[in-house]
Amino acid sequence: MDKKHKIGLFGFGCVGQGLYDILEKTDFKAEIAKICVKNRQKKRSLPAECFTYDASDILEDETINLVVELIDNADEAYEIVTTALRNGKNVVTANKKMLAEHLAELLELQKTYGASLLYEGAVCGSIPIIRTLEEYYDNELLFSVSGIFNGSSNYILTKVIQENLSYETALKQAQDLGFAETDPTLDVGGFDPLYKLCIVALHAYGVVVKPTEIFNYGIQGLSPYDIQFALEKGYKLKLLASVQRISEDEVSLSVMPHFVSRGHYLYHVENEYNAAIVEAAFSSKQVFTGKGAGGHPTGSAVLSDISANRYGYKYEYRKAYAQDSTITKPFRVSQQQVQEVYLRYHDEADFELFDFIGISEKYQGTNFNYVIGTVRLKDLCQLKETLLERDIFIASTGKVVETVEKVKEEVEVLA
Amino acid sequence: MDKKHKIGLFGFGCVGQGLYDILEKTDFKAEIAKICVKNRQKKRSLPAECFTYDASDILEDETINLVVELIDNADEAYEIVTTALRNGKNVVTANKKMLAEHLAELLELQKTYGASLLYEGAVCGSIPIIRTLEEYYDNELLFSVSGIFNGSSNYILTKVIQENLSYETALKQAQDLGFAETDPTLDVGGFDPLYKLCIVALHAYGVVVKPTEIFNYGIQGLSPYDIQFALEKGYKLKLLASVQRISEDEVSLSVMPHFVSRGHYLYHVENEYNAAIVEAAFSSKQVFTGKGAGGHPTGSAVLSDISANRYGYKYEYRKAYAQDSTITKPFRVSQQQVQEVYLRYHDEADFELFDFIGISEKYQGTNFNYVIGTVRLKDLCQLKETLLERDIFIASTGKVVETVEKVKEEVEVLA
Repeated sequence: MDKKHKIGLFGFGCVGQGLYDILEKTDFKAEIAKICVKNRQKKRSLPAECFTYDASDILEDETINLVVELIDNADEAYEIVTTALRNGKNVVTANKKMLAEHLAELLELQKTYGASLLYEGAVCGSIPIIRTLEEYYDNELLFSVSGIFNGSSNYILTKVIQENLSYETALKQAQDLGFAETDPTLDVGGFDPLYKLCIVALHAYGVVVKPTEIFNYGIQGLSPYDIQFALEKGYKLKLLASVQRISEDEVSLSVMPHFVSRGHYLYHVENEYNAAIVEAAFSSKQVFTGKGAGGHPTGSAVLSDISANRYGYKYEYRKAYAQDSTITKPFRVSQQQVQEVYLRYHDEADFELFDFIGISEKYQGTNFNYVIGTVRLKDLCQLKETLLERDIFIASTGKVVETVEKVKEEVEVLA
Repeated sequence: MDKKHKIGLFGFGCVGQGLYDILEKTDFKAEIAKICVKNRQKKRSLPAECFTYDASDILEDETINLVVELIDNADEAYEIVTTALRNGKNVVTANKKMLAEHLAELLELQKTYGASLLYEGAVCGSIPIIRTLEEYYDNELLFSVSGIFNGSSNYILTKVIQENLSYETALKQAQDLGFAETDPTLDVGGFDPLYKLCIVALHAYGVVVKPTEIFNYGIQGLSPYDIQFALEKGYKLKLLASVQRISEDEVSLSVMPHFVSRGHYLYHVENEYNAAIVEAAFSSKQVFTGKGAGGHPTGSAVLSDISANRYGYKYEYRKAYAQDSTITKPFRVSQQQVQEVYLRYHDEADFELFDFIGISEKYQGTNFNYVIGTVRLKDLCQLKETLLERDIFIASTGKVVETVEKVKEEVEVLA
């Protein structure tokens, strides 16, 4: 359990350097033997002999038993992680994009080569949600996992709603504080929370789903009118990712902004904080809150994974394998769910893109128009690309709508 | 991993019955083979042949591999649990008092007989705090674990502060809702959170500490004057349990009411909800919130333990054993910490009980008097019994005071 681990580190940015410092400072029984970086020109805080520019110096070194991958590029990360696993090395990574895009293969590689892949740092910063879903909620009684999975968009939404900053100023602040990526689309386009949601869905329900199969919509379309709407109604806006059971054998996944009112579990989760709500039979709702953006929260999760690796911890993926062996019914991803949304739009052509099942409110003004109505998730998903080209904004009202039939009973179609 | 477990259940109250129902309803791969109860006269929802009145029918039955202990009486629970462990049976329990009073022996029995003892249900209802501390924060970077560990006193405090109910009415409500024990002293006297704190301290820092060695003070002394004080200052009152590192090798533990202001992580945790704040290097503060009182939240945690038992999970107590083997420096419990408190008192004799190091506010009125000042935890602990006999109320202001010297520098002694 306590043999000293020799680590090969890829990447020496903010998280990598912080990790190095903490391993040096504490009596942690793990040392970083080699660091592989890309840029030979960059000035480093450590002597040149600590670094290598050749990945195989780590991947082929038999004395190195743990690879910690902390680089940005998902494709390069994929090469590193898969090679390390094939070489029988345990791996810790925080690369959510790489993970989400290759879940099936990464499961297979772990099984075939017996090496362990840990990635708590990839989801919700410092909140131990993967470990908790993996270890604690392994029964058939989980209703849903949802939450604020992206710190920088939550920071922006907090600032525009509570401090009346413009979207642009808030985004700039988030970038200056190191919360947002240089290319902010990953965050504000809802891709970062989408990747995290795919990973969460695997550990929550054992489903392997591709990011492209899920509806994700971010906050790029947000206008002052939407903020005005939220303020007048006493709402806040939160970009929520969610996976929920909608039937015996179906789960529904989505990433989109939600209006939340006082009393909602996430109403008070502000700035760069992340939160995950786990809803299960008996236990009702549980909320896990913690810092979600910035190098340190990720560093802390990576550190916990390194620590867990010292005593041989690996994810068992019980729910995924239970499905394979038909011990439990496998879950399928369904897009049949009906969602009540707020749609702010510019002209009738925008409105007509949507196949509303029912409409409960319709507002037309000189500055903007909106409707509140119910749509199928499937229809939204098909519009994914188109939505970004129009001057519109969509947010869930959070109202749970069970079936198309129910909606038709409840609401007259005003449209 | 999936062999069917045969369970011997002790106790068939609210949690026990709920558990039975859920195991019957779901395909859970665990069945309750026998139920041992005490009262032969009580009408039961199941046929008589399901029950036994003789503990040895379960404890000596070699086909039963898991004992689930859900009775109230801590002494009887102790007999059941220790006998089961000695007979090599795994045990799931939710009896915090029994656990807290016998931690050292229970550790020893698990080691000697190789059986597993799980007790997530004993602490913070449905919040998986023990598993998280055990599995996730096993490094030397944990600063503190604190929180609202008692649902019924939080319910009472919410009602008296926010709805202006009297203490007595609020307590009665909590009892009617099944949140409070019939003898409410366990809850409102701060004993229930004290037991939970002892268990948390073991999994957070590897220390084994007896409940009698820790300062616990509840909300029994609360008067309308204290509520008035809180309301005027914009505070809420929360009964907090906490264990924190105060030096390289010392931890400090206490249970007492705290005034918390808007912006505090627990300000919005209301009614029967529990919350645990875990503070660690890098990860900053993380908050885990969930329902803490009532049969269902406990049932959900018990269920997760039964589920974990199916695949052979046991607590490793890494931190406790690392200390034994001198891998890490063992932590000692210290009472040297200096605490800023609000003391509402009746006459000078009450005031003079306290050896204040510094006093920053003193109020004298016709109805009540109070001081805000700093005291050593050790001095409070020595007054534990006396406090309950006087017409006084103590609450922490939450101000962190590092050392006696610092206080002396900062504050003039007005007393």
